[in-house]
Amino acid sequence: MVKGDLDPTNWDEFRTTAHRMLDASITKMENADQGRVWTPLPQDLRDQFNRDLPRTGSDPEQVMNDIMPYGAGNTHPRFLGWVHGAGAPSGVLADIIGAAMNVNAGGRDHIAPVVERQVVRWCADIMGFGDDASGLVVSGTSLATIIALKVARDKALPTVRGGGIADARLVGYTSKQTHTCVKRAFDMLGLGSDALRMVPCNDAFEMDLDALNALIAADRADGLQPFCVIGTAGAVNMGAIDDLDGIADIAKRENLWFHVDGAFGATARVGQLARDQLAGVSRADSLAFDFHKWLQTNYESGIVLIKDESAHRHSFSDRPEYLRGTERGLAGGAFWAVDYGPELSRGFRALKVWAHLVEHGIDKLGASIDRNIETARYLQARVEREPKLEMLAPVPLNINCFRFVTNDVNMDAINEEIVIQLQESGIAVPSTTQLNGQLAIRVNITNHRTQNSDMDLLVDEILRLGEMLSVAAA
Amino acid sequence: MVKGDLDPTNWDEFRTTAHRMLDASITKMENADQGRVWTPLPQDLRDQFNRDLPRTGSDPEQVMNDIMPYGAGNTHPRFLGWVHGAGAPSGVLADIIGAAMNVNAGGRDHIAPVVERQVVRWCADIMGFGDDASGLVVSGTSLATIIALKVARDKALPTVRGGGIADARLVGYTSKQTHTCVKRAFDMLGLGSDALRMVPCNDAFEMDLDALNALIAADRADGLQPFCVIGTAGAVNMGAIDDLDGIADIAKRENLWFHVDGAFGATARVGQLARDQLAGVSRADSLAFDFHKWLQTNYESGIVLIKDESAHRHSFSDRPEYLRGTERGLAGGAFWAVDYGPELSRGFRALKVWAHLVEHGIDKLGASIDRNIETARYLQARVEREPKLEMLAPVPLNINCFRFVTNDVNMDAINEEIVIQLQESGIAVPSTTQLNGQLAIRVNITNHRTQNSDMDLLVDEILRLGEMLSVAAA
Ligand SMILES: Cc1ncc(COP(=O)(O)O)c(C=O)c1O
Ligand SMILES: Cc1ncc(COP(=O)(O)O)c(C=O)c1O
Repeated sequence: MVKGDLDPTNWDEFRTTAHRMLDASITKMENADQGRVWTPLPQDLRDQFNRDLPRTGSDPEQVMNDIMPYGAGNTHPRFLGWVHGAGAPSGVLADIIGAAMNVNAGGRDHIAPVVERQVVRWCADIMGFGDDASGLVVSGTSLATIIALKVARDKALPTVRGGGIADARLVGYTSKQTHTCVKRAFDMLGLGSDALRMVPCNDAFEMDLDALNALIAADRADGLQPFCVIGTAGAVNMGAIDDLDGIADIAKRENLWFHVDGAFGATARVGQLARDQLAGVSRADSLAFDFHKWLQTNYESGIVLIKDESAHRHSFSDRPEYLRGTERGLAGGAFWAVDYGPELSRGFRALKVWAHLVEHGIDKLGASIDRNIETARYLQARVEREPKLEMLAPVPLNINCFRFVTNDVNMDAINEEIVIQLQESGIAVPSTTQLNGQLAIRVNITNHRTQNSDMDLLVDEILRLGEMLSVAAA
Repeated sequence: MVKGDLDPTNWDEFRTTAHRMLDASITKMENADQGRVWTPLPQDLRDQFNRDLPRTGSDPEQVMNDIMPYGAGNTHPRFLGWVHGAGAPSGVLADIIGAAMNVNAGGRDHIAPVVERQVVRWCADIMGFGDDASGLVVSGTSLATIIALKVARDKALPTVRGGGIADARLVGYTSKQTHTCVKRAFDMLGLGSDALRMVPCNDAFEMDLDALNALIAADRADGLQPFCVIGTAGAVNMGAIDDLDGIADIAKRENLWFHVDGAFGATARVGQLARDQLAGVSRADSLAFDFHKWLQTNYESGIVLIKDESAHRHSFSDRPEYLRGTERGLAGGAFWAVDYGPELSRGFRALKVWAHLVEHGIDKLGASIDRNIETARYLQARVEREPKLEMLAPVPLNINCFRFVTNDVNMDAINEEIVIQLQESGIAVPSTTQLNGQLAIRVNITNHRTQNSDMDLLVDEILRLGEMLSVAAA
């Protein structure tokens, strides 16, 4: 038995501890639908994390058990806020195997790059990107977007990797309903977020293509260099899907890189209900989406896909001497992740994605996504029946935006308070957003545990809280 | 028992499977010092990852068991290549708890941000960064460097987040022995890698400060805007530590942001043998280092520390409506990671770092680092005694660069072949690099399992292979 400085001194004891903690973890998972959705942190638990730097060791097991109930709540069927996946219990299996291997997936010739390429090829297949597409498993859509837009930037301005942005005047386009990660990518890449034009939307919150055409023409007239357009397949606020085919046509005509942000929405291609609206995803030059959202792998895991492998590699590859590849030995291997993204050391994130896809198969993942869409439609029907509730957006996918209607001048404040009290009660966790200047209760269903009955419970509670708060305000 | 679409249909069976896989994983960890270091992948295992997209599910357990022996080998005591940590078995415990929680650590009011801030404060303490320092736990030094240099960029050019680099002419400085991740950061951030001046080194491979001064003066004379200098605390090739105090003085005088790349080297501050050379780390404006290297947490985990919290936040914060914080409810919480880095969704990486620091305490981690330094000195003494071996660099920390000396004209090829044959034999995994135009066998010891006896075995084998290959070449 190995006796490294940081190995267990007693392996039998270690094994017993590990099994005990696994049992506790599985018990927690088994009861994912029990109890409160979210619970505020008790002060004495917070205090556990306000200690001095530990010079000597002590056993962290008790504290780790104590924190288990105090996650964000997204494993619970009535977590309906932001865009969180619920995760799947079997994710722990890949983590266990991954811990034993402790692989650095940045490069070299071992199993991790092989698994990662399999995941990339499968995703390219799902998204209609073809056999030659390139890709990288990353932490999530934010990083995937930075990678994709860097490739777009570097292709549009071939001197940029060495020479910087200099006086190039690159501009890009996305809809007003875009996710902030796109703006952040422009900021990160030195383009500046002002170089990202926010194209107005139609009533369904989809990019207005006439407005896009007009903006491109105006920028060209001003001597700027349009280089990319970002379509959204599932906008974060209400799930709108841009006219991707329409954008693809414009991108082609205007010679722009076409990127699609499909963080959760694009994955509905594995289901039946939304696949037609998502057909245009396959026409993108690059795509970012997450496994940890609607595909329900555990945090964190997303992917970037890029059709032009050579453009992808040319945007990142620059291995120094000490990382030089060889024909044979451990420094061999055809696919080094460091040639395709900004990170060198990387964990074996691809393993849990691979195991998840193998265990469930994509038809089951698609059926689960479709069921969420049906639950969103069920909620919409219920909201539309309720005189005190008002829909604030269409429901193209899995997100409902609506509000409680009162005569009170401060309707926004009341709806905000409804959501906070729902969260604090532990009954359900929706979130809020702003649409056309109005505060909306936002119910997002990327949760394989959510049932239609959860929607009824939610609406009943919203109505109750709304009445109560209106009376109090009057 | 919860019955989500992707939950186990039979929880008892799931529990049994999980325990069985945990046993397999621990057995693999227990035997980390047994057998071959690295084993090339068998073709039939590769073929397992060349399958069509699975439409229906199947059990991934067998394949996950089969891949366990085919990692990079860095868990083995004679893995001495590149800069890989060996990891610690107890890392699996935090992964198990983390899987049950499946937290998104991007923001909001739950336990993950609290744990992360504890880790940041402890690291700030270790590095002499003070109580007010800001920081973020990230995938590794590459991403940490991008974050730190973005803060530096944005402080030097306050219009850049919106307006882009435009015609600013920012330049930075680092030594010729810098890690490529610094150049990549300049590329990512739109500064261009040519804007990173590579300052020549002295004979010990440390930055030549006269040369630095001269370069800054020349750039100023040319109308460029020097904005940062990057010191290296443990250069990847041979472990050189720049004169950090000297650089800090220059940075202060020239009003430059002082960043330190301390990927593995800076962590030697928790030990005794190198802490004096690392005192100047505390004078940096920002620091990047890894837990997964010399601190031996499992992949992947690193951190960025930034002294000026407000500069850090101003460089990343831009939360949109749907992420707006509240005073109460789940959308509360003082620390949202998304305000401090490019990622939104994030796993609970901080938990395993926290658990690792608590379990071992930093004195033990320091003793383990010191032991590696002693082993590197032991190897140096042995190499210096061997007439057929020649040291190619000093050994300030834990890395030895040397070569086998022959009369053969192709000494580089022979040394390269020695390393490949060592890897293929499964006996040991050193890597190679180039120093002053010569190929070096590079032995890096960031491995809490490596013993002095492993060095003797390694040298014996290098001598044997060297003799054999020289005869063959003659
Ligand atoms: C449409 C959209 N794009 C991008 C993102 C960012 O993805 P991630 O959190 O994985 O970085 C999100 C997250 O909710 C999203 O909904
Ligand atoms: C000195 C130095 N800096 C930066 C890095 C990159 O760190 P990471 O692989 O964690 O991104 C390394 C990796 O070996 C390194 O040795």
